Amino acid sequence: MTAQDRLDQLFAYLRFASISTDRAYAGQVRDCANFLIGKFGSMGLLPELHETPGHPVVVARSRPREGRPTVLIYGHYDVQPVDPVDLWTSPPFEPVIRNGVIYARGATDNKGQNLAHILGVEQTLAEEGDLPVNVIFLIEGEEEIGSKHLAPFLTAHRDALACDVVAVSDTGMIGPGIPTLTYGLRGIACLEFIVRGPAFDLHSGIYGGGVANPAMVACQLVSGLRDAVSGKILVEGFCDRVRELQDWERSTWKRLPDGDEALLEQTGVPALFGEAGFDSYERRWARPTVEINGMGSGYQGEGSKTVIGKEAMVKISCRLVPDQDPEEILQQVADHLRKHCPPSVRLEVAPGHTGMHYLMDPFSTHGQAAQNALRSTFGSEPMLIREGGSIPIIRGFKDILGVDTLMLGLALPDCMAHAPDENFPVANFEAGLRLNRALLKELAK
Amino acid sequence: MTAQDRLDQLFAYLRFASISTDRAYAGQVRDCANFLIGKFGSMGLLPELHETPGHPVVVARSRPREGRPTVLIYGHYDVQPVDPVDLWTSPPFEPVIRNGVIYARGATDNKGQNLAHILGVEQTLAEEGDLPVNVIFLIEGEEEIGSKHLAPFLTAHRDALACDVVAVSDTGMIGPGIPTLTYGLRGIACLEFIVRGPAFDLHSGIYGGGVANPAMVACQLVSGLRDAVSGKILVEGFCDRVRELQDWERSTWKRLPDGDEALLEQTGVPALFGEAGFDSYERRWARPTVEINGMGSGYQGEGSKTVIGKEAMVKISCRLVPDQDPEEILQQVADHLRKHCPPSVRLEVAPGHTGMHYLMDPFSTHGQAAQNALRSTFGSEPMLIREGGSIPIIRGFKDILGVDTLMLGLALPDCMAHAPDENFPVANFEAGLRLNRALLKELAK
Repeated sequence: MTAQDRLDQLFAYLRFASISTDRAYAGQVRDCANFLIGKFGSMGLLPELHETPGHPVVVARSRPREGRPTVLIYGHYDVQPVDPVDLWTSPPFEPVIRNGVIYARGATDNKGQNLAHILGVEQTLAEEGDLPVNVIFLIEGEEEIGSKHLAPFLTAHRDALACDVVAVSDTGMIGPGIPTLTYGLRGIACLEFIVRGPAFDLHSGIYGGGVANPAMVACQLVSGLRDAVSGKILVEGFCDRVRELQDWERSTWKRLPDGDEALLEQTGVPALFGEAGFDSYERRWARPTVEINGMGSGYQGEGSKTVIGKEAMVKISCRLVPDQDPEEILQQVADHLRKHCPPSVRLEVAPGHTGMHYLMDPFSTHGQAAQNALRSTFGSEPMLIREGGSIPIIRGFKDILGVDTLMLGLALPDCMAHAPDENFPVANFEAGLRLNRALLKELAK
Repeated sequence: MTAQDRLDQLFAYLRFASISTDRAYAGQVRDCANFLIGKFGSMGLLPELHETPGHPVVVARSRPREGRPTVLIYGHYDVQPVDPVDLWTSPPFEPVIRNGVIYARGATDNKGQNLAHILGVEQTLAEEGDLPVNVIFLIEGEEEIGSKHLAPFLTAHRDALACDVVAVSDTGMIGPGIPTLTYGLRGIACLEFIVRGPAFDLHSGIYGGGVANPAMVACQLVSGLRDAVSGKILVEGFCDRVRELQDWERSTWKRLPDGDEALLEQTGVPALFGEAGFDSYERRWARPTVEINGMGSGYQGEGSKTVIGKEAMVKISCRLVPDQDPEEILQQVADHLRKHCPPSVRLEVAPGHTGMHYLMDPFSTHGQAAQNALRSTFGSEPMLIREGGSIPIIRGFKDILGVDTLMLGLALPDCMAHAPDENFPVANFEAGLRLNRALLKELAK
């Protein structure tokens, strides 16, 4: 199979508008799953299309041979919506290559990355007639809408999906050509609170000054969660279980490309802000947060309406690190809000979804195998990083299947995942094939 | 004319759905203006219908006689919308009397109150053949939408509207049967600010902890405007020009019915909150405020979306008292926000509309006349109060016509103005006639 053949297959895969969140695309989501079924069958794996209450899960396994490890390769074939579509340089589902870079929705997140693993396996089978390990592909269609049905699927198929380790390429490389192993993810705890004051919106002239303003109380409560100068979280007990960064992590991250500069450039903020005593990587990967995700009160339209809104709403999420417990954190934040809420309003706190952090040892046998594969593929020493986001199913692999996940990123910082002009360099796609082949060999040792 | 005749005329007036804000009702607004023209003509006044870029202004004057003062009686014939209409016990434009109280949109605000003055003049003319003073009625059709065209109208007709004093019944009585003269109103200064951070909404996992959250910064800025415990405004210079309450005001207001209890009952808040050292009346009538009227950031829909919103918006209005200058206040608030805004975000402050406070001397000759009229009408000592809202045209009468306004309230605290089941006691309507007759006599002295 030539490089052009491989690109043709990726383009065919990318042309499915497999947008999982929009019912109107359910047919294309299913067509895309069937494309994978056909692909797996043609390369000699045993494909299975599993229905769920949502979009189907595609599983494909090599003919199992006893006495060798089993590697589960996870990915997703669904993609994000494409709005605002007019900001795309070329149509999102008509892949093109410009300057060696593939532009299409799903190019990097996640079709390009998972097809690299699929074609790596195909190539190994074609050239060597066999694989060094047993392989199970698990490619789901609901990652972009929260993988709601995947944990129950893992539980229901725990035996059939038994494996020694999971490999995923759905994370980032710290920079072009820099091999990157992600060994940790933050957890999450969400809550929403509402401050209720008067029974209805009040005239701010007639009543202003005589009653508490729920929006003002909400702002004061929120302000008390985090120190405006030091960036320290002020919720009692919140940081008690935070595991300090280990020396090797801190010194490793100091050798990464300048994180502050990259962050300024990526976000467009006028200046950085974060917890005193930590750099940008540490703040985002190894320190917890309390962030407002949304808030609203009173009149938000054009011009002015001089009311005291009867209530104010604030949505908060906390990103959590080892060894914080999300349920305990929710309780602490709720207690803090209740303790500081004045008697002039009523406070309602509604806990939301939670997820545990994930952390593996990158120097374990599997971790070393991943590092070796990255080193031989890219020809340089792999960077060991954590990431700030949460991928709940990674925790599910640990909790349900009892195995670690090797997160071998192929996405670049400017890949525009979830945004217009999503892209994936041809070089990264080809590196993905080599990485897969090297990884399976390393894991067979 | 019998009491029943007077009620019939009020009911005819109330049946016009003269909702000024809704174009669909423009015909009924005009019909209502013409109803007044007919009424004024039939009682021997000289009516004028003046077109404006919006709804017409109705003017009617008694045949002027030299050597006696001229009193301008102001009111408005337009009404608020009726939504939510299903909360009305009876249809809003089909007036009915239940337990001696008239229920209809406009019953108290302001048709009932201004028709009482009109019928008072008619009664005087019928019984005495002449009025003790020259009278000019000025009844506008845009009060509920901000009286936008009235100040230019005053300016254009300054000579024709020349008068010695203005009388208005569009304010409140402090309680049933308690005669009330309002001698002060608060001013207003509005502004809106936006805190801008990243160029687009950020993933709160990937970026959280590394950049400032605009919503959090907005909350911190807002919290700094007012002390959460003492309720004192913390903006530098804000209170420098605040005129202290005079002893007679404080002691007079202490004799009013319990303002705290009434405020709790009217608003439904669990407990009152306001500036330490002042009671509910003082806080709402004689102290300035900084209130949030609206705010918004990030995701406000159902459930959670873990973003750091790229910006946060806050709308603020300040109610002002003598001798605060609204433009200076806007500058002080903007300076305060800019001074405390961290370099991690960009701040934009947009000034909005302003209006000066109004204050007259209730012991002036005109003020004494008003007090005498109230005393003789209700048979008890009038209460002298200020109100917390702003009626811009009252300031316009002072600035453009150079005269004070006597605010002689006939509305009760539970009149439900602007709300379903707006109502006006027949007794207050009849008292309004007597008040008008007594007032014109007093002003002739």
